[in-house]
Amino acid sequence: MIASELTSVRAPRVQAARRLTKRTFRARERRFLAEGQQAVREALAAPGRVLEMFATRDAADRHDDLTAAASAAGVEIQLVSGAVMSAMCQTVTPQGVVAVCGFVDVPLDEALAARPRLVAVLADARDPGNAGTVVRTADAAGADAVILAGASVDPYNGKCVRASAGSIFHLPMTVDVEVEATLHALRAAGLRVLAADGNGTDDLDQASDDGRLDGPTAWVFGNEAWGLPEATRSLADDVLRVPIHGRAESLNLATAAAVCLYASARAQRRA
Amino acid sequence: MIASELTSVRAPRVQAARRLTKRTFRARERRFLAEGQQAVREALAAPGRVLEMFATRDAADRHDDLTAAASAAGVEIQLVSGAVMSAMCQTVTPQGVVAVCGFVDVPLDEALAARPRLVAVLADARDPGNAGTVVRTADAAGADAVILAGASVDPYNGKCVRASAGSIFHLPMTVDVEVEATLHALRAAGLRVLAADGNGTDDLDQASDDGRLDGPTAWVFGNEAWGLPEATRSLADDVLRVPIHGRAESLNLATAAAVCLYASARAQRRA
Repeated sequence: MIASELTSVRAPRVQAARRLTKRTFRARERRFLAEGQQAVREALAAPGRVLEMFATRDAADRHDDLTAAASAAGVEIQLVSGAVMSAMCQTVTPQGVVAVCGFVDVPLDEALAARPRLVAVLADARDPGNAGTVVRTADAAGADAVILAGASVDPYNGKCVRASAGSIFHLPMTVDVEVEATLHALRAAGLRVLAADGNGTDDLDQASDDGRLDGPTAWVFGNEAWGLPEATRSLADDVLRVPIHGRAESLNLATAAAVCLYASARAQRRA
Repeated sequence: MIASELTSVRAPRVQAARRLTKRTFRARERRFLAEGQQAVREALAAPGRVLEMFATRDAADRHDDLTAAASAAGVEIQLVSGAVMSAMCQTVTPQGVVAVCGFVDVPLDEALAARPRLVAVLADARDPGNAGTVVRTADAAGADAVILAGASVDPYNGKCVRASAGSIFHLPMTVDVEVEATLHALRAAGLRVLAADGNGTDDLDQASDDGRLDGPTAWVFGNEAWGLPEATRSLADDVLRVPIHGRAESLNLATAAAVCLYASARAQRRA
């Protein structure tokens, strides 16, 4: 089902979609934009997630897989001109396809009811690129959930959605929860809470050798600039540092998370 | 030594520094800009590297450590107005300090003469943020050198320098070398060449268990979009994939590099 081309950025559907680039409107409507082939493909694979889909004629012609997936999901493709597409997208060179999606987050109780074995918690992470990359990395490492706690960035921010490379549609995500309450709930659910901190008393490799990564684990990662406050660290079972063998002061948030989550993935699979 | 404040963006020294935001001028003069406290601090710690230093009065007052380091290094601080600083910086909110530095790269022969045990090679990596993050991560993982081969991004690009968080001044870096010739030189120097590839035949964890990460190793990472071409993979001793346990299609370049380099760091230290 392909509707005839919209050429006006003032068309009500276009205006409604464009508003979703702003957090206030996203929160009010519980909808967000997924831009680009990969994000739209993964969104279409998640049942009922795509509410509207827009494409340029060129993109629709080029991506048979997307038009087929849209058709299979019962989603009508609204053709739009290049100018309209540019107005809806936040990237400099839009790929010609964008979907309006319903929010994917689930309550903490629901994420924990699935008895997760590996969880990534972001506490006050502010950079959308970092947050999206952590979602993607957590997915790759086989994590069962990602929790954006405290004053963390809105994961429905366009930059975060793009950095997640479709993974935002793959694993349960929880948002808008307090850090402290979250850590208590994770421990009550039987997960060992590990805080990642450059000044951690124990080394990641040592913890791995000691078997402390073998069981169900929730990793907590802090803010890009100031890490984790003492109040958060004191709630963790262990405060672990990724060893710095050279002269770098630290790792960035997303790379530190990658090293920690993959250390857990490896330890859990060997245990 | 603090010279009186420059307030004109047309001042010759300011114009000369601003030109270094363009690759052509950087290449001609073999100079680049290091922006922000952390980068300037690390630059000052590298003997003879800082050729000029600019700061706002406010930043100079706030950062005693930087003025002391400049003084110890015999570097005069040129005070500039906020407007001049903004004109020289590429960040939206400049930290008020920027240094003109001499290029830090060394010829491949020199990097190899130091008998490195862990080397990161970027083959045609195009994103400056990724490249800078890999330099930072390689430094953290204790790598002895980073090589930007093929059509890789200019590491003196402001975004790359910022993403390296000062690590560009920490470990030997080689640029402008061909991928194939580099891999031959690395093998001749006794390093095992490992290509990181999402479609690799062997799994990183398996290779680690088999002891294939224990000796001197050069990791090769490819382009963000298309990875490593067959011609490059065929020159590697092993083509390894970071295991994808979930539904993510892949990891991004910098996170994949973090997992690989830290796997080597761990294996080498245990061997």
